[in-house]
Amino acid sequence: MANEIRDITIIGGGPTGLFGAFYAGMRGCSTRIIDSLPELGGQLTALYPEKDIFDVGGFPKILAKDLSKNLVAQAMQFQPDLVLDEQVEEVHWEGGHFRLRGASAQYLTKALVIAGGKGAFEPMRLDVPGYDEFLRRGVEYAVKDPERYRGARVVIVGGGDSALDWALILKDMTDRLVLVHRRDGWRAHQATVNSVQAASEAGEIELRTFHEVRNIEGTEVVERTTIFDNRTDEETCIECDAVLSFLGFKPDLGPIQHWGVEITKNRVKVNALMETNVPGIFAAGDIVDYEGKLDLIATGFAEAAVAVNNAVHFVDPKARVNPGHSTNMKIFKDK
Amino acid sequence: MANEIRDITIIGGGPTGLFGAFYAGMRGCSTRIIDSLPELGGQLTALYPEKDIFDVGGFPKILAKDLSKNLVAQAMQFQPDLVLDEQVEEVHWEGGHFRLRGASAQYLTKALVIAGGKGAFEPMRLDVPGYDEFLRRGVEYAVKDPERYRGARVVIVGGGDSALDWALILKDMTDRLVLVHRRDGWRAHQATVNSVQAASEAGEIELRTFHEVRNIEGTEVVERTTIFDNRTDEETCIECDAVLSFLGFKPDLGPIQHWGVEITKNRVKVNALMETNVPGIFAAGDIVDYEGKLDLIATGFAEAAVAVNNAVHFVDPKARVNPGHSTNMKIFKDK
Repeated sequence: MANEIRDITIIGGGPTGLFGAFYAGMRGCSTRIIDSLPELGGQLTALYPEKDIFDVGGFPKILAKDLSKNLVAQAMQFQPDLVLDEQVEEVHWEGGHFRLRGASAQYLTKALVIAGGKGAFEPMRLDVPGYDEFLRRGVEYAVKDPERYRGARVVIVGGGDSALDWALILKDMTDRLVLVHRRDGWRAHQATVNSVQAASEAGEIELRTFHEVRNIEGTEVVERTTIFDNRTDEETCIECDAVLSFLGFKPDLGPIQHWGVEITKNRVKVNALMETNVPGIFAAGDIVDYEGKLDLIATGFAEAAVAVNNAVHFVDPKARVNPGHSTNMKIFKDK
Repeated sequence: MANEIRDITIIGGGPTGLFGAFYAGMRGCSTRIIDSLPELGGQLTALYPEKDIFDVGGFPKILAKDLSKNLVAQAMQFQPDLVLDEQVEEVHWEGGHFRLRGASAQYLTKALVIAGGKGAFEPMRLDVPGYDEFLRRGVEYAVKDPERYRGARVVIVGGGDSALDWALILKDMTDRLVLVHRRDGWRAHQATVNSVQAASEAGEIELRTFHEVRNIEGTEVVERTTIFDNRTDEETCIECDAVLSFLGFKPDLGPIQHWGVEITKNRVKVNALMETNVPGIFAAGDIVDYEGKLDLIATGFAEAAVAVNNAVHFVDPKARVNPGHSTNMKIFKDK
């Protein structure tokens, strides 16, 4: 299977890659998905399976793991090859097709769609004493099971959507919830910020803006953290069971940066057709940059459809790009 | 309410407009939706409520009316004003806001997002004797209740997704299903074309490619149609109870073409930020044209998010465009 040529190979089995695989199937392509993770779903399953997602069209609210399940079912309708736990190291054009050299095998494909999300999941770490020591012993950068924090005293660090969303989810089950952020501006949806404000006024969340973590201490597990006011250097010690730091992810493209595609701001540069500078290599989702780019699942879906349609056209120049007005294939004989 | 100023007014309550309204709410905007139809949902409810939709991310399959219901629920979370059955005739910039002159009232808004779908729902008609006479008496251009055709003899005319999708849906309930198309190329998803081919080989759908309708006859209702081979002019008379013509919709922008926005190929021209040539007027969905544009619900959702984010920035230039890294508002006081 590995060496059978496929029309389109999609690097990345997150939401963008899954929708791309589905869409490639709709366009009649043979498709392969390769992901370095052992499981499909990308960030949805690897980072926040239990988080509610609000901004996917048609779902007022859906758990990340459920969205992932739906997307897998949608993609699998057309039975793409799945190659998990595989890192593609090199990509070579051999005329007519690309050869992908993976850690465990090689793969041939006529076109490539890079849907690699934020690249490797390299979380930004808190550079303070105790972080490394207590990582996974109270210190976490992802929540896989919120129930674990029922009745606990939790300190959340960060000012983005992840930090605020988790503060809102956990506030009702924790014994105490402190939100620490180094300034008083937030990098989150306004509606989320409003909800956090309301929860703060209701005393459900303790806000500590202009504060940073100085250290994390404990014996076996986390027992306390010291934070300080970055304007006055005044310290506060907070007894707690968990320190959850949501500081985003370091962009780490990994081997992709050696595939010959142009990189800009740690992302793959594409044009409006989701073409990279290498003919036959397209990209979509959080990994791309172009004018007007937004990092949303909704835009990832659209980019995947655009990338796949243009990849179809690359593989078969007779196939028109827009499927609403395309395919146009003479496969029926008149009766 | 009509004269209260809103941050964003969205013209069109179809899928793109509904997702835009939801997204504007997420961004903390006051929002208004205006639609000329009496009901939200756009084409989903007006044209094919009972049709399965396959290409919306996260739904392996969903009935159009159910998708519409979900999108309405998603949009209504932030309680936008709804103005239905209202046609906006004129748009004037008055410095700081636009004044929209509707047929029944006037509306003030700081920014405008045109999500007008394919414009007015003006179906392409079959220009043959009997079409007008039997319209809604056996002749239809939309299917609202497939059950009506149970046990009937149905002729479907067209070669696009609507024609093929309905052929596939109705074939199992009709007594006879004939699909008439003037050539042998199809403007439909490849997977759909493959299914129709399989159904044709199984004898479930009678294909008549290179055929056109010559006339439609009956007494009270449709009783037969005569089709002809457009290569030989040979005629065939088909006894039938219904002629369903799916020939697409005439692009009719209506009053929008007088709002000062640049029109290209009967669509509103936008750039990558979904900006029209008029500052403060954005557009999204099937009504827009830009390089790489695809007519899909998935792209409409993404365009709506891009349009709204840039509209937010227009309304408040201090608000950053990308919400993942924006809002940034100093609404919390340090404790």
